[in-house]
Amino acid sequence: MQRQVSSPDVSGLDPLELARLDRYWRAANYLSVGQIYLLDNPLLREPLKAEHVKPRLLGHWGTTPGLNFIYAHLNRIIRARDINMIYVCGPGHGGPGIVANTYLEGSYSAIYPEIAEDVDGMRRLFRQFSFPGGIPSHVAPETPGSIHEGGELGYALVHAYGAAFDNPDLVVACVVGDGEAETGPLAASWHSNKFLNPARDGAVLPILHLNGYKIANPTLLARMPDEDLDHLFRGYGHEPFFVEGHEPEDMHRQMAATLEQVFDRIRSIQQAARDGTAANDCPRWPMIVLRSPKGWTGPKEVDGKKVEDFWRAHQVPVANCRQDPAHRKILEDWMRSYDPEDLFDADGRLREELRELAPEGPRRMGANPHGNGGLLRKDLLVPAIADYAVPVTERGALIVQTTDVLGQYLRDVLTLNDENANFRIFGPDETESNRLGAVFQVTDRVWMERIEPYDVHLSRDGRVMEVLSEHLCQGWLEGYLLTGRHGFFSCYEAFIHIVDSMFNQHAKWLKVSSKLEWRKPVSSLNYLLTSHVWRQDHNGFSHQDPGFVDLVANKTADVVRIYFPPDANTLLWVGDHCLRTWNRVNVIVAGKQPEPQWLTIEEAAAHCEAGAGIWEWAGNEDGAIQPDVVMACAGDVPTLETLAAVMLLRAAVPEMKIRVVNVVDLMVLQSREHHPHGLADTEFDDLFTKAQPVIFAYHGYPYLIHRMTYKRTNHRNIHVRGFVEEGTTTTPFDMTVLNKLDRYHLAMAAIESVPGLKEKADDAIAALKAKLEEHDRYVREHGEDMPEIQYWKWKP
Amino acid sequence: MQRQVSSPDVSGLDPLELARLDRYWRAANYLSVGQIYLLDNPLLREPLKAEHVKPRLLGHWGTTPGLNFIYAHLNRIIRARDINMIYVCGPGHGGPGIVANTYLEGSYSAIYPEIAEDVDGMRRLFRQFSFPGGIPSHVAPETPGSIHEGGELGYALVHAYGAAFDNPDLVVACVVGDGEAETGPLAASWHSNKFLNPARDGAVLPILHLNGYKIANPTLLARMPDEDLDHLFRGYGHEPFFVEGHEPEDMHRQMAATLEQVFDRIRSIQQAARDGTAANDCPRWPMIVLRSPKGWTGPKEVDGKKVEDFWRAHQVPVANCRQDPAHRKILEDWMRSYDPEDLFDADGRLREELRELAPEGPRRMGANPHGNGGLLRKDLLVPAIADYAVPVTERGALIVQTTDVLGQYLRDVLTLNDENANFRIFGPDETESNRLGAVFQVTDRVWMERIEPYDVHLSRDGRVMEVLSEHLCQGWLEGYLLTGRHGFFSCYEAFIHIVDSMFNQHAKWLKVSSKLEWRKPVSSLNYLLTSHVWRQDHNGFSHQDPGFVDLVANKTADVVRIYFPPDANTLLWVGDHCLRTWNRVNVIVAGKQPEPQWLTIEEAAAHCEAGAGIWEWAGNEDGAIQPDVVMACAGDVPTLETLAAVMLLRAAVPEMKIRVVNVVDLMVLQSREHHPHGLADTEFDDLFTKAQPVIFAYHGYPYLIHRMTYKRTNHRNIHVRGFVEEGTTTTPFDMTVLNKLDRYHLAMAAIESVPGLKEKADDAIAALKAKLEEHDRYVREHGEDMPEIQYWKWKP
Repeated sequence: MQRQVSSPDVSGLDPLELARLDRYWRAANYLSVGQIYLLDNPLLREPLKAEHVKPRLLGHWGTTPGLNFIYAHLNRIIRARDINMIYVCGPGHGGPGIVANTYLEGSYSAIYPEIAEDVDGMRRLFRQFSFPGGIPSHVAPETPGSIHEGGELGYALVHAYGAAFDNPDLVVACVVGDGEAETGPLAASWHSNKFLNPARDGAVLPILHLNGYKIANPTLLARMPDEDLDHLFRGYGHEPFFVEGHEPEDMHRQMAATLEQVFDRIRSIQQAARDGTAANDCPRWPMIVLRSPKGWTGPKEVDGKKVEDFWRAHQVPVANCRQDPAHRKILEDWMRSYDPEDLFDADGRLREELRELAPEGPRRMGANPHGNGGLLRKDLLVPAIADYAVPVTERGALIVQTTDVLGQYLRDVLTLNDENANFRIFGPDETESNRLGAVFQVTDRVWMERIEPYDVHLSRDGRVMEVLSEHLCQGWLEGYLLTGRHGFFSCYEAFIHIVDSMFNQHAKWLKVSSKLEWRKPVSSLNYLLTSHVWRQDHNGFSHQDPGFVDLVANKTADVVRIYFPPDANTLLWVGDHCLRTWNRVNVIVAGKQPEPQWLTIEEAAAHCEAGAGIWEWAGNEDGAIQPDVVMACAGDVPTLETLAAVMLLRAAVPEMKIRVVNVVDLMVLQSREHHPHGLADTEFDDLFTKAQPVIFAYHGYPYLIHRMTYKRTNHRNIHVRGFVEEGTTTTPFDMTVLNKLDRYHLAMAAIESVPGLKEKADDAIAALKAKLEEHDRYVREHGEDMPEIQYWKWKP
Repeated sequence: MQRQVSSPDVSGLDPLELARLDRYWRAANYLSVGQIYLLDNPLLREPLKAEHVKPRLLGHWGTTPGLNFIYAHLNRIIRARDINMIYVCGPGHGGPGIVANTYLEGSYSAIYPEIAEDVDGMRRLFRQFSFPGGIPSHVAPETPGSIHEGGELGYALVHAYGAAFDNPDLVVACVVGDGEAETGPLAASWHSNKFLNPARDGAVLPILHLNGYKIANPTLLARMPDEDLDHLFRGYGHEPFFVEGHEPEDMHRQMAATLEQVFDRIRSIQQAARDGTAANDCPRWPMIVLRSPKGWTGPKEVDGKKVEDFWRAHQVPVANCRQDPAHRKILEDWMRSYDPEDLFDADGRLREELRELAPEGPRRMGANPHGNGGLLRKDLLVPAIADYAVPVTERGALIVQTTDVLGQYLRDVLTLNDENANFRIFGPDETESNRLGAVFQVTDRVWMERIEPYDVHLSRDGRVMEVLSEHLCQGWLEGYLLTGRHGFFSCYEAFIHIVDSMFNQHAKWLKVSSKLEWRKPVSSLNYLLTSHVWRQDHNGFSHQDPGFVDLVANKTADVVRIYFPPDANTLLWVGDHCLRTWNRVNVIVAGKQPEPQWLTIEEAAAHCEAGAGIWEWAGNEDGAIQPDVVMACAGDVPTLETLAAVMLLRAAVPEMKIRVVNVVDLMVLQSREHHPHGLADTEFDDLFTKAQPVIFAYHGYPYLIHRMTYKRTNHRNIHVRGFVEEGTTTTPFDMTVLNKLDRYHLAMAAIESVPGLKEKADDAIAALKAKLEEHDRYVREHGEDMPEIQYWKWKP
């Protein structure tokens, strides 16, 4: 197997152009070093003194010259072919490089006029980096043109693919660091090419940057035999091109020639797909393996230790430059090696002949609107939810698969936005299993590999994306949203934890970017968590974990919302609402199993808008100044069990006055100072009373309710039942019994919470205990729930 | 490139033996179907009636016949070569298959005598599966021989490698489903071969099982061109062998011959490494690609729809068999196709000539002690922590990198256990960066790829495992612990969220297995979370998230512990304690930056054993019946800021009586009913008072303290300061200011919390506010903290 290296034929590449390109690269490198080190004297027009150097040297040099090299060459090909391209920078800690390049091309100063293209602007550019009140060290929301943070590694390539879907004219260049390439999410991301349709989607150009080292170690991929590297990327379905070396002139030639070849390939793949001449298989997209030294062009040695082309170049290659004159001399020599006088004019502006190397206007990668997707975002077209409403004439009489109703709505969302091609549904192989199958009436799963005649709902043009990797689903969706589109992710509740950290990073991105005036809002990231903890009949304990929302609730209030719609009409309202919001993460938890229906669509709308409310039809307060007990519930199964408990109580202890409160929008529980949806204390007291016992049946871990309500007047009387980590493969009702969230335990808790009642209700308690025992015997004998549970109806 | 298919030379393979092996496989398939479907009539000695069929049909058939096929062939090679082997079943939902095989070989009945090897035992075996009070549908702790749950997919291969490290005589067969193979963690896991030393470690035999389909979709790998598959696994460094087909006789021949070849390869790799004749590079380990139909030998069609070799075979291929006689007929025909009379004798016991095909005693994969690692576990040898204690003669005078001290202790743990070869340290490239570098005085990082002369601390025999994948670190460690060894995982605090879901699954495993008498305790999984939220000078917001412990606190109390040692001696005590525990997950959060030292080693031991305590030397209660305020703290930075606040308060408001409480073991805060470490209410009140204000400076999200203390008498007066999601790249002290956890805010909060004091302390408040403004000006001007902050000393 011969590796593909760049063609020796470099005819057509102008040596003068490449020499100018080298100067441009040096300018970017100079500005990168300046950001890490300098407070002042930005152009070194005087000798470098201690006070010119930052007291705290922070940043990552190692990856930066490689990132700059790539940026300069992508600029060249953009100009040569008028390409619409964005740059996803996997090694996000190479922030100084991307900032430097956007500054050179002018897109930085356009957004941040105080960082002007002159000496003073350059001084500010240097000073602000990793400085209090300045900019972060990583590529971040503050960085023009970026849709990718790069702080937590692993997601560059999925973000790139997400950006490319439904953007047929876009090329997403994606630099993958060889550190990042060791992560799981990145290792799986290479298979994303099997979901990219060259006829309707853009192209992704992965550039694996092998600079050989992490913080203190070589990288696995850089030390693999070349033959294995070639095998690996062919195995992933790519055609790898290798650019390798350290001598700049040769490397410029190789890179320029390789990019020409690669863009020829991309064009021919796209043309064949678009004019219908393509073979009916997954095209073999090109990718580049760039092997260049870590800390390239930086100090070769410091204090007798190898730095360039080694892990010591990872962060700040020469430390302590403010205090140590010898180190400062290394720094000064290093910076002067780029010859700043040759690069910048008297005003400190990039010289004219170098300015010409950058693309213009929105072709600059820092100004491409796809890097600020809110600019391109079109509102999602949605149908009226009333058209999908289930009829509720008698409470609880109708049994419906709640998510199936939402599926019908989503089907029509797909149809309405078909022309805009800006809505996709994501999930790990579970769209059908999660009862959203109605969408397959109008679309398919996207599938670029072989399709067999007996396959069902697979096509090249499907708008449902399924892969058994929550990481890929999440990452594609993030990339899709951040470039101005809309999406919906349905997932097993327990396994959404797989992307906890990706959610964290996305929430952080939203928090920061929503404070940047120039970043326009992007659509919210919407999760439907179904196949939830209470209905894992096929699976058991490993599939039971409702804790994702606990993590979500830690994030900035502006950004997160959590909904527990108890039936189909509330789910419709919530789903529709979430799809029309922006700059948020919305989590909807709703089961997919057949469930009784409680509210008409009008009632559902009013209830969901309030976020929580008294279900008067369920309780029996009728005029009591205070109920004896509040039976509160959040979640479909807890709502069902609460209503069943209320029915038992109303029959057994009719003198007990019960209020039923249902909570859809969990954030109403928090105090208003903590969350904009939080109820005012008086409103909260109106629902939950100031001193009456509250039996709160909650879908997840009980602690979340406690931490949200700890400041409320009546907190001391709130008794929460929820999932307490008791689970196995058993019947649905037995799951609630194991966790004491079932109707019998709830009813007992209600009786016991009312002072003076327990003694009078001994018989009722005994009857409830007997029921629990009967249940236990029955399920262990029959393997299913008692008929009175299976066919229970609300009849108070 | 020619794919490697099994040698046509099957000489040496006895056709009669293969025919018996086929019968054994049929027996396993029969028992698997029986578990999914039958309540009674286990041997079909009467016609199948409705009441013999379970009312709820739960389970996964699709993967099962393939798992059974592999198990039978591994049995054959174990017997032929006396191999010490365990079976890691990635498609864990193929539980019925592994249960069936362990039942056939007798290891199941040995553990569960009520599931005897007779007709009645078989009836119970069938009935218990996915049945209330029975066993879960997945391979789980209840399954003999398993160290792997398989509910959440992605971790089979890392678990297998973890089991193989330091077990030179062990072969870990690892079945990877083609669904699982799409996940990120699994995709990265293939690189684990680059960490396996054939001289000192065992072998892993990955068997990629391509049955083609997930729940409702083809799989990516099964539809890849054969050539790409071959490339991919060569790229991963393997030598792939293909076994493909559906005709049993041919498949048996192929599989048997392939296993012979594969085990020849394994033997020659190990021999060469062990006798010193190996080339000095990463060996190319064999792996098997087994392509067989999903639901192999099951119904080909049901209701006119394709089932076998399609995704409809994934779970229960023919539904509703209790109610639908036609479906029941399909089931009965299917089960009878295995010819149970040919397989089981009159007593319902596997026929003698088939029993001989199973290995004996501990060679049975269900009885191999490596599958129940607690049996093999030797106590970790640890040195006396006093030998590493830092001297504390003056509170806070000594400045030490706390984790560096722990590193010295860990170094000697490595030395003490070198001979037992049962302790490793794991982390994503951060052992040195996390200041545990002392371990490199006695060991290296394990590295099987090329080593250059200038590389530092890399060797084939290192006991530190670094890879830039938290998934791999976690998975290897889990596999290592579950096979009876010890380990330590140090990680960036924010990025431990990457393995949230793996932690969840491991905690669930521990919870269940600790209730199974026959499963012996395994060592705890110990995390050191350093590079924490308060010290991300190089990184910023993306690296700031202290929420992992919130997730941990959701898990069963028996299993989890969370520690915040405030200095080196407390860290030593906690680290040593955690390493000596079992069946737990211990989370230690401690910074790596230079910090003042507070407690002598004796004080540290007493303080840590109590979990929390009053630091009398820091407060000024001296005889006050109740302090005016309790200044509580948990975490190194909060402790420092609290003490600094106390110093300010004692100077500015000397009449104010302050108590300082430090919390090391966070679980003491919970009530005793929630956690065994929880303080009794009277003990809690003794520390935190019943009614005085408490200013609690906490390392993480404040809500965790609220949810843990909500039942405490004084909860209403506990005011928590912590990380409120305000972060960026700035100075360490500015980070605390952004989140109002700094000394000035804490001191103001303390003054304002004491009734009647605020008015008298106007000047003090004004001075504190002025200090905050001074700080703000200073950092924005100088880029570092004020000298009085940087060089602050405790001098009350």
